[in-house]
Amino acid sequence: MYEDLMKNECRTPAILLVNPQMGENIGATARAMQNFGLNDLRLVAPRDPWPNPRAYDMAVNAKSLLDSVKIAPTLAEAAADLHRLYATTSRGRDMVKEVLLVADAAPRWVAEMAAGARVGLVFGAERTGLTNDDVARCHAILNIPTDPENASLNLSQAVIIAAYEWFRHGAVAVTPLTSTSSRNASPRNPETLSPPATTAELQGFFDQLEAGLEAGGFFKTEQIKPRMWRNIINLFTRARMTEQEVRTLRGAVRALQNND
Amino acid sequence: MYEDLMKNECRTPAILLVNPQMGENIGATARAMQNFGLNDLRLVAPRDPWPNPRAYDMAVNAKSLLDSVKIAPTLAEAAADLHRLYATTSRGRDMVKEVLLVADAAPRWVAEMAAGARVGLVFGAERTGLTNDDVARCHAILNIPTDPENASLNLSQAVIIAAYEWFRHGAVAVTPLTSTSSRNASPRNPETLSPPATTAELQGFFDQLEAGLEAGGFFKTEQIKPRMWRNIINLFTRARMTEQEVRTLRGAVRALQNND
Repeated sequence: MYEDLMKNECRTPAILLVNPQMGENIGATARAMQNFGLNDLRLVAPRDPWPNPRAYDMAVNAKSLLDSVKIAPTLAEAAADLHRLYATTSRGRDMVKEVLLVADAAPRWVAEMAAGARVGLVFGAERTGLTNDDVARCHAILNIPTDPENASLNLSQAVIIAAYEWFRHGAVAVTPLTSTSSRNASPRNPETLSPPATTAELQGFFDQLEAGLEAGGFFKTEQIKPRMWRNIINLFTRARMTEQEVRTLRGAVRALQNND
Repeated sequence: MYEDLMKNECRTPAILLVNPQMGENIGATARAMQNFGLNDLRLVAPRDPWPNPRAYDMAVNAKSLLDSVKIAPTLAEAAADLHRLYATTSRGRDMVKEVLLVADAAPRWVAEMAAGARVGLVFGAERTGLTNDDVARCHAILNIPTDPENASLNLSQAVIIAAYEWFRHGAVAVTPLTSTSSRNASPRNPETLSPPATTAELQGFFDQLEAGLEAGGFFKTEQIKPRMWRNIINLFTRARMTEQEVRTLRGAVRALQNND
């Protein structure tokens, strides 16, 4: 995975739409992305079959971007190769998670990408937004400030504001990562000691952990499990772990399971 | 005019769409405005009859904002009560005019409104944008930075970025104007000596001037006139004149005409 980054294949944030309902919003998203130099669009379980003619109608000059859309059944799969996920939501969430104004988050995307991370910006379905389970898988919450009495942004309009902030802060500021620069990075920052873990690597750990917890009777009832599990995912996600740390934890889980 | 400002009736920028073609864009504009606390939408010679059902379909919760839309046949009439106009355009223009990034312009709107001015943000038709004549009537050009290869923003998406910047910088920062604060304003700033001229006051001056120039044979040919006149309008608009200065100039024109 990290080798791909060395080749500098991914230099803009990915846009991930979870359960988009309206093809028009997918097309308007593609058009807005192209205006601001973004080209990596991913759909998680869209409502309508793909390709969606309504999306193509709205995309105007961005039809080729739609041709390269990636589709996956879950956020974890759609984001498998990404290292940093930002959940866009206006509702408060009952979980410990950093909340950033989008204008303050954009410089961080630039810095993270300059350090070799792949960044994904995650948007929920038109009416319902992101589920708590999806928010838990993201490293921080993006807030777009709006009138509290009319807080609900159109999906593609939320995307365009994030894309605008990206372009304004750093579309040209992200420099190619070289192996030299990453090797010479300061050892004071634990994240530079090892590449950040991808979503897929985290998921591998989560699967292992969940199975271990299930086997160990950790989840007292089926009713209580979703919330408990979400809190665990949130906690580990928030930690922004490196590949090495994930490997360490996986070894720790195995070690614990052998201790009988 | 200025008395209205004392009553603090207009505390958000107006959005002016010149020759909008698609009702969908008018509706999406209204929705975006409401998200960011804007409520003054004006249409200059829209293509389709008003009320436009396609606009209402797209407005979702902003239908009441559409009910209060103002319609006028020209930009000068639509902006008659406004003091500061910003033209949104991505194309370079062959005229001397300040160009501001929208993120840098927003704090200025806040300051101008805090000083009692009414601000209007002007957007052109979907495919063609603003005419040079309309740009000439604006005090500055707003630039929304985009990928040069895909610079053409959807109309409602351009509006939402301007509205977002407004909200981010100062939706709550604009304080009511009191007569005391305006009277006590520093005499060092010529704009505070007299209220800024409205577009209507400027237009009265322009009409007088144009008639005087016509009568005096200033415009050598009908072919050359539009460009010459546009340059004059641009020059006086750029000056950001006060009411008092406009009155002075009108007197000057009359004086010149009497000098025979």
